[in-house]
Amino acid sequence: KNDLQLEFKNRTIKHISIFEGVDEKFVREIALYLTPIVLTPGDYLFRTGDVANSMFFVKKGKISVLTEDEKQELTILKSGDFMGEIALFKKSNRTATVKSIGYSDIYELHKKEFEKVIKKYPDIALRIKEKSISREQ
Amino acid sequence: KNDLQLEFKNRTIKHISIFEGVDEKFVREIALYLTPIVLTPGDYLFRTGDVANSMFFVKKGKISVLTEDEKQELTILKSGDFMGEIALFKKSNRTATVKSIGYSDIYELHKKEFEKVIKKYPDIALRIKEKSISREQ
Ligand SMILES: Nc1ncnc2c1ncn2[C@@H]1O[C@@H]2COP(=O)(O)O[C@H]2[C@H]1O
Ligand SMILES: Nc1ncnc2c1ncn2[C@@H]1O[C@@H]2COP(=O)(O)O[C@H]2[C@H]1O
Repeated sequence: KNDLQLEFKNRTIKHISIFEGVDEKFVREIALYLTPIVLTPGDYLFRTGDVANSMFFVKKGKISVLTEDEKQELTILKSGDFMGEIALFKKSNRTATVKSIGYSDIYELHKKEFEKVIKKYPDIALRIKEKSISREQ
Repeated sequence: KNDLQLEFKNRTIKHISIFEGVDEKFVREIALYLTPIVLTPGDYLFRTGDVANSMFFVKKGKISVLTEDEKQELTILKSGDFMGEIALFKKSNRTATVKSIGYSDIYELHKKEFEKVIKKYPDIALRIKEKSISREQ
């Protein structure tokens, strides 16, 4: 069962756009760190101003990124996207509210392991960082 | 530095009331699982309805547990208290909003490790469970 789960994770990881072309070693390492989370329709993952301990990768579903008052939708995230990286990079609180539209399957990467990955794989770090900066514009 | 941190954690753990009288083996094991988090005044740890991936132990500070509309304060948590266990036990979303009053030092226990601890130490599980049930009344 664990082997199957791991195999499943490995496949998801390869579908995450910023992980395109990474080597097997990286895939195996990050797979160990990811925790699956299921979001049901309308579930909040977190809200603007919350303390940040993790970033997340979308495996399946549609996830809305909203302003604090929820009146503006900044983007919709889908399979292969990620979120929650800004607060980790900037050591700030959450800059937006993240809410699932339907059922979504996501993976959590905890701050502890995020920091390991960032240090050990500078090119991955750069890819996440670049996307992150473009979101802050 | 890591040894010092661990020693510091071990002392905190012994101050958490539900861990009173536990053996050294348990303390050493749970210390490995806890991640420190600093909350600044007014920081939200999470809010009613959010998805739950962790529970938390208070090392220092004052933390307010509020109803969803934040009009009622259910309790103030202090050194040695814990929060976030209800959603993990019930596999539900957060039943209340948790906000730091001043600066607080807390420890996070992730769902993955929470489940390990609960299985391996049924008497600790029972103590957390009992407190949890009393909160739901
Ligand atoms: N303008 C934006 N466009 C797309 N995603 C965003 C935007 N602003 C914030 N986000 C994402 O929403 C997340 C909210 O939490 P973080 O600030 O940790 O990280 C943020 C980004 O991943
Ligand atoms: N009436 C209450 N008194 C004290 N603590 C509470 C009360 N209701 C909820 N909590 C705590 O607040 C937390 C909110 O998230 P959880 O539902 O995971 O777990 C909850 C408890 O730890």
